[in-house]
Amino acid sequence: MPVSSTTTDAVLARVDAGLDDSLERLMELMRIRSISTDPEYAGECQAAASWLRGALDEIGFAADLHQTEGHPLVLGRDHSADGPRVLFYGHYDVQPVDPLELWDTDPFSPEIREAEDGTRIIVGRGSSDDKGQLMTFIEACRAFKAETGSMPIGVTLLLEGEEESGGKNLPPFISAYKQALKADIALVCDTDMWNRDTPSITTMLRGLVGEEIVITCANKDLHSGMFGNAARNANQVLADIIASLRDENGRVTVDGFYDDVAELPDTVREQWQTLGFDEQAFLGSAGLSIPAGENDRSVLEQLWSRPTCEINGLSGGYTGAGFKTVIPAKASAKISFRLVADMDPQKVRDAFRRHVRARLPDDCSAEFHDHGAAPALNVPADGPMLQKALGALSAEWPNDAVITGSGGSIPVGGEFKRTLGLDTLFIGFAQNDDRIHSPNEKYDLQSFHKGIRSWVRILAALAD
Amino acid sequence: MPVSSTTTDAVLARVDAGLDDSLERLMELMRIRSISTDPEYAGECQAAASWLRGALDEIGFAADLHQTEGHPLVLGRDHSADGPRVLFYGHYDVQPVDPLELWDTDPFSPEIREAEDGTRIIVGRGSSDDKGQLMTFIEACRAFKAETGSMPIGVTLLLEGEEESGGKNLPPFISAYKQALKADIALVCDTDMWNRDTPSITTMLRGLVGEEIVITCANKDLHSGMFGNAARNANQVLADIIASLRDENGRVTVDGFYDDVAELPDTVREQWQTLGFDEQAFLGSAGLSIPAGENDRSVLEQLWSRPTCEINGLSGGYTGAGFKTVIPAKASAKISFRLVADMDPQKVRDAFRRHVRARLPDDCSAEFHDHGAAPALNVPADGPMLQKALGALSAEWPNDAVITGSGGSIPVGGEFKRTLGLDTLFIGFAQNDDRIHSPNEKYDLQSFHKGIRSWVRILAALAD
Repeated sequence: MPVSSTTTDAVLARVDAGLDDSLERLMELMRIRSISTDPEYAGECQAAASWLRGALDEIGFAADLHQTEGHPLVLGRDHSADGPRVLFYGHYDVQPVDPLELWDTDPFSPEIREAEDGTRIIVGRGSSDDKGQLMTFIEACRAFKAETGSMPIGVTLLLEGEEESGGKNLPPFISAYKQALKADIALVCDTDMWNRDTPSITTMLRGLVGEEIVITCANKDLHSGMFGNAARNANQVLADIIASLRDENGRVTVDGFYDDVAELPDTVREQWQTLGFDEQAFLGSAGLSIPAGENDRSVLEQLWSRPTCEINGLSGGYTGAGFKTVIPAKASAKISFRLVADMDPQKVRDAFRRHVRARLPDDCSAEFHDHGAAPALNVPADGPMLQKALGALSAEWPNDAVITGSGGSIPVGGEFKRTLGLDTLFIGFAQNDDRIHSPNEKYDLQSFHKGIRSWVRILAALAD
Repeated sequence: MPVSSTTTDAVLARVDAGLDDSLERLMELMRIRSISTDPEYAGECQAAASWLRGALDEIGFAADLHQTEGHPLVLGRDHSADGPRVLFYGHYDVQPVDPLELWDTDPFSPEIREAEDGTRIIVGRGSSDDKGQLMTFIEACRAFKAETGSMPIGVTLLLEGEEESGGKNLPPFISAYKQALKADIALVCDTDMWNRDTPSITTMLRGLVGEEIVITCANKDLHSGMFGNAARNANQVLADIIASLRDENGRVTVDGFYDDVAELPDTVREQWQTLGFDEQAFLGSAGLSIPAGENDRSVLEQLWSRPTCEINGLSGGYTGAGFKTVIPAKASAKISFRLVADMDPQKVRDAFRRHVRARLPDDCSAEFHDHGAAPALNVPADGPMLQKALGALSAEWPNDAVITGSGGSIPVGGEFKRTLGLDTLFIGFAQNDDRIHSPNEKYDLQSFHKGIRSWVRILAALAD
């Protein structure tokens, strides 16, 4: 049922009046240490899921916890309204917090404070990725229900706890619950704004292949005095292989890596040029000044439309305090590939494994561990719901909403497309300096507040 | 005073009769977790030193504990005999025990058991390196004192606790205690036998340079979705640098690395060829079959007379369970160089640092940490004391003693030469499959028993 502007204004006023309570609820959720990748925190993931089920129950949604082989999924619904139905997705799990010593505050004791630039920020693990973002949607629903007694459209929420750790249990759940997840469009709140005053809807997302390799040379760690020179050193073999993954121009050398990467259409390249992306400011925000990667591509092109190979973790031999003159038997690396366009994750994984095996000395071996995969995603930019959402966002923020790409990977969008036939609108309110996955993660208070208000406007707009 | 063969036989008989007690004392010392490189075990290093002081006191030596800025030194002496005086050196500290899961037993709960080949072995950290070895000498002194009431020659013992962790406090102590350490020759028990039935005296030892590098790129860990490709990845930079340290022929590429490395004299190369060293058996003992390192040198030459560069530790980014798509800001490596002949440790360190700096992207930086250094050592093979020791060893073991080189580094030999003007006889009873520095370290019971007996014979021989 269409929502009058008077009603929308009343719901927005309720959001404003309840902001402190909304924040208190967000911080309650952030205090739960739901690090999904580390088995030690399984109980905390369970607790975060239970908390969300309770929150949905409290605002009058039907809500269930679905146990998986990993962390539970939360499914909430209010299908009383006629008209279109949306499927909202967010994740309650967070990244590990190491290196802990670089945090200014306890990552799980969230605080609201003033940043150096005068903005008010919420600091703590998950503030931006993704607890703060998913709570903007729940709080918008809360305001609608509290003010009008109902939702303007049908709403299903699917809240996951393994987004940061492979998310292996989500696809089978989506397949098994197709009927319950039926909707007209999916909404995912896990992306950035273009800048602090300009909301964006992301229509291009990179895919991901996660690999872990363990190189084994000798059958035990050796003493470098007794064996040094003559015995193969697993650290050296691993470093040689990693160094071979990029050529001197920064191109990834894995065989066929760029075969399915289309050149960016001129029209898109031109549109991106009008965005006024400042390479130096972007790199400068990370303390860098010289772009890495393919040296004949712009930074934005590299981030949004080119695949990458990154060494996420390296480990081998003695890494404790002091020194140990060991020749390690084993060395390992966690390596991820971001994919674009039509790249096939399995093809990339296979080619990478061939690349490694081809460079192994004959008496060494490599084990490979699959840490998940998802293809890249492209959403058509001309759908009517996308247009309504753009209008709603433009009404809330100082600048009109823009359409962008993203270097990140949100595998669930591909699942929704493949299994449910749904397009996804990626609408998020994070800033690119939110330090997600890093120490001192933060979320702008403005993102949280106007994020809630944005969803109120979008839900109202989609009811028309 | 010369020792009659009757007296020597009586002392040897006492060694045999007291073997079980000797073993019990060794295991008592092995139960002390004296890992010197890890500050957490400082108290255990103190305890090991106190235990040794007590053991020397018990056999009638004067013994003192000398505190340092690190772990204490133990100085014992019995100077009542006329004639020559020896300075014995051993170390009570041990290597860390990780990876703990690869140990079959608790590393600090020593056990005596039968190995697969039927030999009886003492298993546990420090059994071979160096607690088992230093105890052979102490138990020989104990037998002499118990049987004859005195030592046949003057004996000073210097027992260190930082051999495995840089040993920074030993050189100043040697300088400060020159008078107390005055002797005619030094004896070090920290090396291998040629094989299980053939004792050896080592006259060539490699030197060592220990370096740790920390590469810093971004000012924080970054998300590979947001920054992947465009931001420099510290793991990749580190791997590129490490890969650059050896060329395709296995030669170390650090500028000037081989400048001061003399080619092996033909006579020495010929002598080594007569040793019948079995490359395949040696590599096979470590589960390897293809020699690494310089591909135009024999394995023995590479181990004893060629310098090496080994990557002892690698660490960067996320290395815990699961996966984290981080671009690490920092990555680090522990790297050691074994030196030969006239190579200057400082020159090698400086050249390595230049090599790293020359390969750093302009907006990245490297920190270097010095983990100690020692030049290589060559002992003249024609001294009379060396000849007496060879004779004593040949009398004890099935095969005659041989003169060998060693790929390892025992910095104290250089210190004794430089500061005290002393040559050192490196006489040890370890086997090259003792897994020192590795899980399941062991020491042959025969090495321990005949090691004690060997020292009895050597002490008697040197009295002549």
